[in-house]
Amino acid sequence: MTLRPAPEWRTTGWLNTPEPLSLERLRGKVILLHAFQMLCPGCVARSIPQAQRVAELFAGAPLAVVGLHTVFEHHEAMKLESLRAFLHEYRVKFPVGVDAPGEGGDPIPRTMRAYAMQGTPTTVLIDAQGRLRRQVFGLHDDLLLGAELQTLLLEARTGPVSGVQPSTPGVHSAGGCDDGGCAVPTP
Amino acid sequence: MTLRPAPEWRTTGWLNTPEPLSLERLRGKVILLHAFQMLCPGCVARSIPQAQRVAELFAGAPLAVVGLHTVFEHHEAMKLESLRAFLHEYRVKFPVGVDAPGEGGDPIPRTMRAYAMQGTPTTVLIDAQGRLRRQVFGLHDDLLLGAELQTLLLEARTGPVSGVQPSTPGVHSAGGCDDGGCAVPTP
Amino acid sequence: MTLRPAPEWRTTGWLNTPEPLSLERLRGKVILLHAFQMLCPGCVARSIPQAQRVAELFAGAPLAVVGLHTVFEHHEAMKLESLRAFLHEYRVKFPVGVDAPGEGGDPIPRTMRAYAMQGTPTTVLIDAQGRLRRQVFGLHDDLLLGAELQTLLLEARTGPVSGVQPSTPGVHSAGGCDDGGCAVPTP
Amino acid sequence: MTLRPAPEWRTTGWLNTPEPLSLERLRGKVILLHAFQMLCPGCVARSIPQAQRVAELFAGAPLAVVGLHTVFEHHEAMKLESLRAFLHEYRVKFPVGVDAPGEGGDPIPRTMRAYAMQGTPTTVLIDAQGRLRRQVFGLHDDLLLGAELQTLLLEARTGPVSGVQPSTPGVHSAGGCDDGGCAVPTP
Repeated sequence: MTLRPAPEWRTTGWLNTPEPLSLERLRGKVILLHAFQMLCPGCVARSIPQAQRVAELFAGAPLAVVGLHTVFEHHEAMKLESLRAFLHEYRVKFPVGVDAPGEGGDPIPRTMRAYAMQGTPTTVLIDAQGRLRRQVFGLHDDLLLGAELQTLLLEARTGPVSGVQPSTPGVHSAGGCDDGGCAVPTP
Repeated sequence: MTLRPAPEWRTTGWLNTPEPLSLERLRGKVILLHAFQMLCPGCVARSIPQAQRVAELFAGAPLAVVGLHTVFEHHEAMKLESLRAFLHEYRVKFPVGVDAPGEGGDPIPRTMRAYAMQGTPTTVLIDAQGRLRRQVFGLHDDLLLGAELQTLLLEARTGPVSGVQPSTPGVHSAGGCDDGGCAVPTP
Repeated sequence: MTLRPAPEWRTTGWLNTPEPLSLERLRGKVILLHAFQMLCPGCVARSIPQAQRVAELFAGAPLAVVGLHTVFEHHEAMKLESLRAFLHEYRVKFPVGVDAPGEGGDPIPRTMRAYAMQGTPTTVLIDAQGRLRRQVFGLHDDLLLGAELQTLLLEARTGPVSGVQPSTPGVHSAGGCDDGGCAVPTP
Repeated sequence: MTLRPAPEWRTTGWLNTPEPLSLERLRGKVILLHAFQMLCPGCVARSIPQAQRVAELFAGAPLAVVGLHTVFEHHEAMKLESLRAFLHEYRVKFPVGVDAPGEGGDPIPRTMRAYAMQGTPTTVLIDAQGRLRRQVFGLHDDLLLGAELQTLLLEARTGPVSGVQPSTPGVHSAGGCDDGGCAVPTP
């Protein structure tokens, strides 16, 4: 099987990064590309928080979480100023590119069209060699997403993300139950 | 680094399986051992559902999800009949062993003691060679758990659990937004 | 319309109260009777927490929250010792009566039969004069439950539960947004 | 105690209503005025859905749910076009007024200033005579909100919102448990 390279991104601007990002610049890292719209309820409630958790939990790994604002409806409502305020209020820290408007009156922006995305949210996984490896429309399951990211990270020969090693010290110490669980009382 | 073998299980009975399970019998499979108590609120609300989702999502992989009922308090309240009804009502389908009572008046049951678990829930990952690789007390994050399971599955040379491949067909088809996301209208 | 008196309760024991409760003893108070089983998943996840919040939020009102353990299946699994441990672990503080076993081999316990309850959870509202005013099978909506409780409390001529009065001091003080909302910066 | 009239609203436009609303026009109805910003995360996740549920559950009562878009930051990001798209995507059906800009460079809009709101979300209850009865900053509890609305509705002599009457038919019919509860098998 020959894997195809991920299509290059076509953007008109970037937020949360001093300079534009490209596949070329990120070569050597696994990329989670998260395509969203700021007025997409499922993105706001579920998938943007998921992308944020990936960025935090895999902070030590060679993984880049990149947002892509792929507006295909209500264009006037989601301009750059609105997006900037949205990222600020929702504390989104990862870089976000603004997908370039479609050509010849196409309401679908260019990168969205190049990836043939079906809507938002779409999660795209690109391996360290820049190849498209996975594309999911709709909310993706955390367990599967974690497994897929790990596969690409291991391929990139970086070792396990979170050391899979014997017993770690726990967070509880006193006896009794709380929302997290029930602790054995320690003498 | 030398990894130690996981301690053998000491149980007095099993539910959801025609015959008792042991590490020996499961050799060759990755094991997620989920230690819980049926009256532990955090287990009921969070970690048992997590173990159930692992069992479902990784159904095609050489992975065994095994429950262990490690009662260390309220012993009279959580006997076999109560556990059996609990598993029925909560639709828990994976095999569950009942940890053997502690020796010499020890309130901590034997397997729980052998693994030095700090309480419930505890999630234990055992690799295909029967070695203890990870032990987490309290709720474990789905993204990290997925990554750790995948590491052990790949080590066992089974290939990726969920094929990390290009574009899959989406679940949405019509335009408009719902809780899951916003779909591009298709002509 | 003539309202019928609520059927008297038939119980074999009580927890969380020094002495048994009866409709007669609670006359003058509005009663929220919450019928549940400790192994009913919907009760554990949703309706028992709701009854607990009612008990806390209406603590100053002439309202009694009373639990009723109406076991109609898995009788061996939910005996008094199991219920006692359950109430302890889930921090249920309101009084709970154990419904008396059905007569003549009836698997439905007596009070449950007398009220013709369809299952668990069932929420019953009884007014200050001991009359049955509302009975809901399944999870009840908080907004409607609040409205119904208030109706019965106002009928009992006790004044509003929570003073409906002008402006209360808020809980936020600094500018910026958090999960709770966005505050106006104060000079 | 003399209750003061609620301050009149000062708006620059309305959505979801053929003509502007005013306290005068709504006299005789209880009003839930919900002040929000479309980029306030707590409003989007919690309080706007609460206002929507009030509108649905109390649809038969003389109660008007009215939104007020009180932008006090990121003014450029939340203009009318953005608000219109937001209401569409989040399926907000109740009327929403746009609070008029503050005077003399005041970043706080006029109605928000007149009510001395501390931020968003703010829930205001106005009685059928147009008097301000309750103002809460931050998420309000459903049980208490239901109780407060009922108090004002009963004062308006409209009878109980949801008939507090004996036994209603349940929604379950077969035996067994699901997320909602456990049903008694019916012969």
